[in-house]
Amino acid sequence: MAASTRTPAPQPIIIAVEPFGGSIRNHSPLLPLVYWDDAAVTRGDGVFETLLIRNGKACQLEQHLERFQRSAARLDLPVPKAEDWRKATSMAVEQWAEKTEADAKCVWTYTRGRPTANPNEPHPSAWLTINPLDAEMLRQREEGIKVLTAPRGYSVETIDEDLPWLQVGAKTLNYAANMSALRWAKRRGFDDVIFTEGDRVLEGATSTVLAVRGNKLRTPAGSGILAGTTQAALFAKAEQEGWNCRAKEMDLEYLCEKADSVWLLSSVRMAARVRRINEKKLPKPDNEATIQQLVASSLG
Amino acid sequence: MAASTRTPAPQPIIIAVEPFGGSIRNHSPLLPLVYWDDAAVTRGDGVFETLLIRNGKACQLEQHLERFQRSAARLDLPVPKAEDWRKATSMAVEQWAEKTEADAKCVWTYTRGRPTANPNEPHPSAWLTINPLDAEMLRQREEGIKVLTAPRGYSVETIDEDLPWLQVGAKTLNYAANMSALRWAKRRGFDDVIFTEGDRVLEGATSTVLAVRGNKLRTPAGSGILAGTTQAALFAKAEQEGWNCRAKEMDLEYLCEKADSVWLLSSVRMAARVRRINEKKLPKPDNEATIQQLVASSLG
Repeated sequence: MAASTRTPAPQPIIIAVEPFGGSIRNHSPLLPLVYWDDAAVTRGDGVFETLLIRNGKACQLEQHLERFQRSAARLDLPVPKAEDWRKATSMAVEQWAEKTEADAKCVWTYTRGRPTANPNEPHPSAWLTINPLDAEMLRQREEGIKVLTAPRGYSVETIDEDLPWLQVGAKTLNYAANMSALRWAKRRGFDDVIFTEGDRVLEGATSTVLAVRGNKLRTPAGSGILAGTTQAALFAKAEQEGWNCRAKEMDLEYLCEKADSVWLLSSVRMAARVRRINEKKLPKPDNEATIQQLVASSLG
Repeated sequence: MAASTRTPAPQPIIIAVEPFGGSIRNHSPLLPLVYWDDAAVTRGDGVFETLLIRNGKACQLEQHLERFQRSAARLDLPVPKAEDWRKATSMAVEQWAEKTEADAKCVWTYTRGRPTANPNEPHPSAWLTINPLDAEMLRQREEGIKVLTAPRGYSVETIDEDLPWLQVGAKTLNYAANMSALRWAKRRGFDDVIFTEGDRVLEGATSTVLAVRGNKLRTPAGSGILAGTTQAALFAKAEQEGWNCRAKEMDLEYLCEKADSVWLLSSVRMAARVRRINEKKLPKPDNEATIQQLVASSLG
């Protein structure tokens, strides 16, 4: 059988990171890692980042580190130490490279830890994992995606006072809603969701919206949108190459009628071209490969 | 030293529940339980219930079971089997009773499980824990609480279509926002939060609001409020004893100016009387003990 001649996917790599000067060490993926009372498990109380591992390095590491630290600060967690995460990532990437040259997905996780172990001050649980890329995700990257739009269903009020529980700008482990929206789209034969608020385009379930029109690159701006590291990298690179890049409010008509092409940007899937939004087919643009190469090259 | 003569708190009990006809068994609280890829850890993707263990039994078990099953269904999880949870709870309560007669807190957790172990269909991870009651929580139950009101900060839109990602009516592990609001209140010298939407009173961070006025018991109704099992038990019992019980929209003025007393109801803390809302002191009512006994007796 052909299948049996294929190389099995490498085992995940897990590296535990002790937050306060402890060790950085491998943990077996075959053993449980997290305790019953960890705030990640009981409350989804923690933050994460997902990085692409490519050509033997972690893409946009410093940008992810910056958002990781910002997310932790938004949740009143001790700020994760940059040198620890650089070191753990470098250890993991090196181990991955010994197994395969394939791209991979690296996830950093940092939680409020175990209240029964340390009731008075958070002692975060922290680790990273490296995993092979998902075949379905690679297909989406290559062939493009069909997307349903859907109202987010709630709107964030504009209030003068900062309400920390809204966790604005933090990438938290409270991600079940995003996964639920993806399942909802899949049940209807689509690959992904673009959330809207009235006419306003917000973001994908796990991605940033990009619209290309002539030499213009546009991404939606405003509240309810998490700043994307891939979009930031793309804009920085594209500006240098003469593209006109802006974040501004965007409506659905712009995506469906005005843009030459629409993309969902994320760290690991990179740029997935939107081939259809709801009932509307979006034709393949002349510069599809150019955009894909621009995104890939922007990741270094 | 006095402290050393006190009995140490009993170790937690953990009972793992295999969802599809596997075993129901103890797990050591000293060992990690959850894998790195469990959806509870990576997404906060699961549901939970918190039950009071009292006089050798789990209070309102069937009501919690009903909400637990409803929550799981809202998240497209296989519905947890009632007989498994009754059995596991009974095992745990029996073990707890061998250690102490003290009240305890039992938490049921049910997650989407490990995608790498079973990518195509959710195979939930499931367990319960029993823990001693927190001293601070007991103090709040006895002495009452000071509460800040705060806008929830977002409003759920009324949309015809059902949006499953809003997880309306489900008690999910995406609970970090509630914990953040409690920390926010504590930093300001308060014990808890009552969320509002404009003038509307919604709910506590982890509790249901109750207002008592004459022989009327009132709880806020409308969107954005999770149905409370303790409030339901109280209303059922109180109706029998001649109280007039209703869920209806409630504004802050009703709490601060009209009610004789205001309470936050939850499974384990039971009824905590609100002694202060923001700058407004709420005087002790004549029937404080009556209300407390009514709540306690409604729990069976």
